[in-house]
Amino acid sequence: MQFSSKLIEDAVKEMAKLPSIGVKTATRLVMHFLKQDEEFTSSLATALLRMRQEIQQCKHCHHYSDTDVCSICASPHRDKSLICVVESSQDIMAIENTAQYNGLYHVLGGVISPMEGISPADLHIDSLLLRIPQSEVKELIFAISPTMEGDTTAFYLTKKMQAFEEVKISSIARGIPIGSELEYTDELTLGRSITMRTKV
Amino acid sequence: MQFSSKLIEDAVKEMAKLPSIGVKTATRLVMHFLKQDEEFTSSLATALLRMRQEIQQCKHCHHYSDTDVCSICASPHRDKSLICVVESSQDIMAIENTAQYNGLYHVLGGVISPMEGISPADLHIDSLLLRIPQSEVKELIFAISPTMEGDTTAFYLTKKMQAFEEVKISSIARGIPIGSELEYTDELTLGRSITMRTKV
Repeated sequence: MQFSSKLIEDAVKEMAKLPSIGVKTATRLVMHFLKQDEEFTSSLATALLRMRQEIQQCKHCHHYSDTDVCSICASPHRDKSLICVVESSQDIMAIENTAQYNGLYHVLGGVISPMEGISPADLHIDSLLLRIPQSEVKELIFAISPTMEGDTTAFYLTKKMQAFEEVKISSIARGIPIGSELEYTDELTLGRSITMRTKV
Repeated sequence: MQFSSKLIEDAVKEMAKLPSIGVKTATRLVMHFLKQDEEFTSSLATALLRMRQEIQQCKHCHHYSDTDVCSICASPHRDKSLICVVESSQDIMAIENTAQYNGLYHVLGGVISPMEGISPADLHIDSLLLRIPQSEVKELIFAISPTMEGDTTAFYLTKKMQAFEEVKISSIARGIPIGSELEYTDELTLGRSITMRTKV
């Protein structure tokens, strides 16, 4: 692209570093900033900078938080007997959006992956194991990707959890998504939906 | 969406103000900022702020520019006998990308639109008329949208240009885009391509 302005070119280059934003989209967005008043650009820049600089990790569950304890862990209305173990903060947002879960969370920060050099020590597993005896937790719910790495992580955690006999372990249900048709479902999901069939 | 963080929520809200970026995409982008180091966010924010604050309009052609005269107007290699009249700076970028034009430009800043309350006085028409006698221009090329407003603007400019008899006026060719098929071309374009047929 020809910009004939270094200022525009730099802004486009930075925008195009974002995932799924190419040079064309970046140019369109940058032009939008130029058409709006300065306030538009500065309020976006300030919000991003403030977020990046001030965001913390909840000291209990490692979810992104504005304070040292996140609003979920701090809430008196949440069921403290449940901890849902997830890979990332995005997973928490997705589950929160369903409004079907009222327990606490624990963010692992990834899954065990020897290929990518991620060992259990790189994840927030120790803090989970430390958290359990100090808490009222009665059930741990695994909401981890059903990939080989995810299954390995769940297996590893299950092993480690044998030290806490009184804590039940469960996993979110895998099966046919609501609204999709049997014949178009992938074999793995369909297979799991049969082996993990539920009583009517 | 549930963010459980005011910092993230604010950043998502700001990102979602951008055209064709909804809350879901904004959330994905904001999460990307959190996963990268602070430098990633600050260099984007700085580039956008610098651009928005320091960008100028070329005093000759009104194209976005880092200095008071843009690199196109300042270049000794451009053909100063041609001025291509466009609606916006984006149009210049599009034409520059073709590498088929080596003249100068003039950005009108829009088209005449009584419906939207845009009169000739709101556009950079006076500066174009002032520019012509001071320049070496021999031909004015209209590259304006073939809409009712665009045609009105071209007509208005043509009238005004009668004062400069020696300056030729032309318009970019309208016709069937290269690679597209006749039967799928809209009637207006196909009609124009017949009335404006060229000699072989």
